[in-house]
Amino acid sequence: MVTRKYISDAVIRRLPRYYRYLGELLDNNVKRISSGELSRRMGLTASQVRQDLNHFGEFGQQGYGYNVEVLHKEVARILGIDQTHNIIIIGAGHLGQALVNYTNFEKRGFHVVALFDVDENIIGKTIGGKEVQPISNIKDFIVENSVDIGVLTIPKKEAAQMANFLVENGVKGIWNFASIDLQLSDSTVVVENVHLSDSLMRLSYRLSNQN
Amino acid sequence: MVTRKYISDAVIRRLPRYYRYLGELLDNNVKRISSGELSRRMGLTASQVRQDLNHFGEFGQQGYGYNVEVLHKEVARILGIDQTHNIIIIGAGHLGQALVNYTNFEKRGFHVVALFDVDENIIGKTIGGKEVQPISNIKDFIVENSVDIGVLTIPKKEAAQMANFLVENGVKGIWNFASIDLQLSDSTVVVENVHLSDSLMRLSYRLSNQN
Repeated sequence: MVTRKYISDAVIRRLPRYYRYLGELLDNNVKRISSGELSRRMGLTASQVRQDLNHFGEFGQQGYGYNVEVLHKEVARILGIDQTHNIIIIGAGHLGQALVNYTNFEKRGFHVVALFDVDENIIGKTIGGKEVQPISNIKDFIVENSVDIGVLTIPKKEAAQMANFLVENGVKGIWNFASIDLQLSDSTVVVENVHLSDSLMRLSYRLSNQN
Repeated sequence: MVTRKYISDAVIRRLPRYYRYLGELLDNNVKRISSGELSRRMGLTASQVRQDLNHFGEFGQQGYGYNVEVLHKEVARILGIDQTHNIIIIGAGHLGQALVNYTNFEKRGFHVVALFDVDENIIGKTIGGKEVQPISNIKDFIVENSVDIGVLTIPKKEAAQMANFLVENGVKGIWNFASIDLQLSDSTVVVENVHLSDSLMRLSYRLSNQN
């Protein structure tokens, strides 16, 4: 019987980086790589790389290293991006428009299937090949299109209510760009926050506190 | 003599959250708050809040807690956002346009002073009140406008070269949205990455690995 080991946040944070670096190696026709060389490129130690990957299985071979293509596929499977995800974007402003046009997502199985907005001037327009729909359509749309991820690019005042509304209608994951930490009534829902202002403030902190 | 203590990444990651939560308390006219209440709202422990803030000074008083307005200002000072920062955005596509229109930045002293692009169809257009300029103008612009932060919303293939070019011309901080970890020749430069695809993959991981 396989019992899932506890995986720390730090490891989870690094998983997409492994995927990115392995993808670049593949693009450069690199067939295999040692944990030492992979770690050097990623700014980690070789033992950290081995430990990270050992959480999920035995991928390397002594004296050979990792088969890049196999490991890339395995990391994709671990990340769940070997499956497709249907995404809706709530808020078709500049950020929503940027996200719907982001080709990297489609490559990784994330399909933006619709955008929604409250603004009558935007509803009906076509953005990234998708017609912007009124919020009132969301409920039926989620059910009919097996939407599992909702992206919030709306003001923070409306974010919590909209997130709970999406969750009540079957959305399992919220990708939140509103400048607020969402606390949802359903604790099984996954929330991933992108707080752009926080990131810019960290940059400012490090600019002020060098030396 | 004051010697700066080592501040861990985890503490630095939390600093902008303190700033956000204190800002919301201020908006709600809350004058003072205990470390217990602040920690409860932020999902931390009271001792973690006290420890985090003690890195930077003595802000609380036994039996009183924190003065919200004073602490908010202090955290702003620690983050360096009591100063203004001049920002240029390289890449006036959807994401660049989203960022220039992001009012949260202006409120925190981050002034987007110009956008640059290589696309003749975009150069000369006005976005967020700024005229998009050709890349060839960057060098003079940085010097004349005391630009300290460059934002990269360009493809990953061009990101490293552009980052080094900005740094050679005096930019001290890079806010990087390209899907690559920048390794710059000047190690004193601060790089803050926003890897949107990584964030979406972490969401996918957690969706796949719930139980």
